[in-house]
Amino acid sequence: MSLDPTLVPDLQAVLRDVPDFPKPGIVFKDITPVLANPRLFGRVVNAMSAPFRGQHITKVVGVESRGFLLGAPIALALDAGFVPARKPGKLPHRRIIERYSLEYGADGVEMHEDAILQGERVLIVDDVLATGGTADATARLVQRLGGQLVGFSFLMTLDFLEGPKRLGPDKVTSLLSL
Amino acid sequence: MSLDPTLVPDLQAVLRDVPDFPKPGIVFKDITPVLANPRLFGRVVNAMSAPFRGQHITKVVGVESRGFLLGAPIALALDAGFVPARKPGKLPHRRIIERYSLEYGADGVEMHEDAILQGERVLIVDDVLATGGTADATARLVQRLGGQLVGFSFLMTLDFLEGPKRLGPDKVTSLLSL
Repeated sequence: MSLDPTLVPDLQAVLRDVPDFPKPGIVFKDITPVLANPRLFGRVVNAMSAPFRGQHITKVVGVESRGFLLGAPIALALDAGFVPARKPGKLPHRRIIERYSLEYGADGVEMHEDAILQGERVLIVDDVLATGGTADATARLVQRLGGQLVGFSFLMTLDFLEGPKRLGPDKVTSLLSL
Repeated sequence: MSLDPTLVPDLQAVLRDVPDFPKPGIVFKDITPVLANPRLFGRVVNAMSAPFRGQHITKVVGVESRGFLLGAPIALALDAGFVPARKPGKLPHRRIIERYSLEYGADGVEMHEDAILQGERVLIVDDVLATGGTADATARLVQRLGGQLVGFSFLMTLDFLEGPKRLGPDKVTSLLSL
């Protein structure tokens, strides 16, 4: 992020490690201190939007629910519409689903079937890229609706889980790699 | 909303009624067509922020999860920090809870205990004001942390449920009354 060279250290200074959440052995990266700081939150939105300015994005998809917090302001920053990708059963209108496997069992993500029009240029946003299961399922929803997936924008990537490899490294942007 | 006189009809034209969601007899107001339209979404954020400009809001609380979509951009528009109020078990750090009753049973809402500092001026944001149970519980969280509740900003209010009466009519602003 050459436009904001102190962003990475400023983020690292406030991101909070929460051990054993949501389950033993996982160190959760708590972004709430970033959101609580309006200047820093604004810089994050700018930096996550920057690689996609001028790329004619028409829809930004935010993945429930921390992806909503970043995706909604990024959509406004890019003058694009916002589309929620939600857990099964939450969206009220006609919807499509893609499933993905977890360490134990499976989960799914849904999108309204009219959320993306044929040929729209789409950016997918979430806070953390881990294994990429949810992001990949979200990308499949976009493609089923005829959208053109331009890329993914994450606040941070857990590189050892090889999410970028799964999603296509040229499609993934991230402010932080951990 | 005298600054944007066509906002109400423009909203009414795109809000989607979904009958029997999430359960029989309820007509759900689907805001996703508003979010999908970047100009309209931006106008909603401006109009929901407008009554609180100049009121020195330092934290905007968004109620999971549609309140995240509106609260995050409103926080940025007001140059305030954003605080998520979440369903029990979702927030990773030390937290406090307030419970509220539903038609059948009870639910709760949580906030990080360091989310609001003593004396901070707080705005609570959500999409729909129905009975006001969640909003009222969120207000109690703010007050327990020593915050000063300046008001509530909703996209729409279901007036027959008397939410404004419960929350204090002078505290409630809403773009639409249904």
